[in-house]
Amino acid sequence: MIFRQLFDADTGTYTYLLGDRGTRQALLIDPVREQVDRDLKLIDELGLKLAYVLDTHVHADHVTGAGLLRERTGATTAGGKSGAKCVDRRLAHGERIEVGAIELVALETPGHTDDGLSFLVGDMVFTGDALLVRGTGRTDFQNGDPGLLYDAITRVLFTLPDDTLVYPGHDYRGMTVSTVGEEKRHNPRLGGRSREEFIRLMSSLDLPQPRKIREAVPANLACGLAPQPSAHGGAV
Amino acid sequence: MIFRQLFDADTGTYTYLLGDRGTRQALLIDPVREQVDRDLKLIDELGLKLAYVLDTHVHADHVTGAGLLRERTGATTAGGKSGAKCVDRRLAHGERIEVGAIELVALETPGHTDDGLSFLVGDMVFTGDALLVRGTGRTDFQNGDPGLLYDAITRVLFTLPDDTLVYPGHDYRGMTVSTVGEEKRHNPRLGGRSREEFIRLMSSLDLPQPRKIREAVPANLACGLAPQPSAHGGAV
Repeated sequence: MIFRQLFDADTGTYTYLLGDRGTRQALLIDPVREQVDRDLKLIDELGLKLAYVLDTHVHADHVTGAGLLRERTGATTAGGKSGAKCVDRRLAHGERIEVGAIELVALETPGHTDDGLSFLVGDMVFTGDALLVRGTGRTDFQNGDPGLLYDAITRVLFTLPDDTLVYPGHDYRGMTVSTVGEEKRHNPRLGGRSREEFIRLMSSLDLPQPRKIREAVPANLACGLAPQPSAHGGAV
Repeated sequence: MIFRQLFDADTGTYTYLLGDRGTRQALLIDPVREQVDRDLKLIDELGLKLAYVLDTHVHADHVTGAGLLRERTGATTAGGKSGAKCVDRRLAHGERIEVGAIELVALETPGHTDDGLSFLVGDMVFTGDALLVRGTGRTDFQNGDPGLLYDAITRVLFTLPDDTLVYPGHDYRGMTVSTVGEEKRHNPRLGGRSREEFIRLMSSLDLPQPRKIREAVPANLACGLAPQPSAHGGAV
């Protein structure tokens, strides 16, 4: 498999490219709209063809490139069941996508948002904003729910083998990857906390709103494509 | 092997941690002084002990963490033959460092600076600022020499197998890794250019000085440790 981790420095977002060496088909996880040209150039240079674009959830901090990528490549878009209605496939827990020899399994991991998915591919899991390196996503908007996030992490992600590589949706301190075992032992939000203690911690964080939330959430509900301007023009 | 790519967003610098699963010994390539605490915490959490700290060259854009790491862990520091005299080992082309089952081979790849090394570990090569993802290091200071850089890339790095993973010293566009084959085909500074054309291109770039060069080069020649303040204090 061809594998590339890509970074958007403006929003601290990781995008993941997975390509099948046999069929040359590829899938892209959590693309950023401003990086669509970069991503398509890389896909072309690697001799790949984009088959699937997946979002782990409706993001509040950046606009997805999914809609643009579908327009420009014909790729199928996918996301969570309760997420953006504009996607072609809405995945439930355990549903699979096969791209050549690559088999991706969707895992429902809500709590940061109510539509949160993680994607398991072999010994790698792409956790979106559910589980971060030594952190977790916040739970104070978009139907976030700290109890559900605790369950998603402890009952879904932490039941994967300890050496499963954890590829997060973001990092702000220069960490690129972790493992399930490491996060079990060293994640400061989880370590030793009961469900009630985790809920109390997450409810006390008092974080500022994400810089792009007002733009990003409506845009992402439209797969990152701006609403078409009226044929009559203007705001009349 | 345990492998981690780490990023310093302020300077766009990649640091690489390689750990041997058997002996738990580790080596760190191109650490950034401001990230020493982060790196030591990760090394500790992974149950590793730092045996070697290597710099690919005397950097002009960030201060190495090598000296601090040696002070705090007792690790051996290493760099190129014509680089900082403060390091414990000065490596020539073909010299090896063994850390448990990890075997690292130093490759002289000067041209960005006169002391440039790349490090080959299995199917990965850490190229410092010689070869970047779709780019190269500049050649206009620190005895840089575009002809030598062309030779280092075409006669040393490009003779490695095409699927060798290229891990650069920097990236500013969110790329984390490439391969030798990709860079042969798609590196816009190299592609199809003769040695003379490359020299002409590199000599015409007219780049601004790196923001930190006045601080970084003298500091790195002292392995990132500030000169001890005078016992008498002040600048008298």
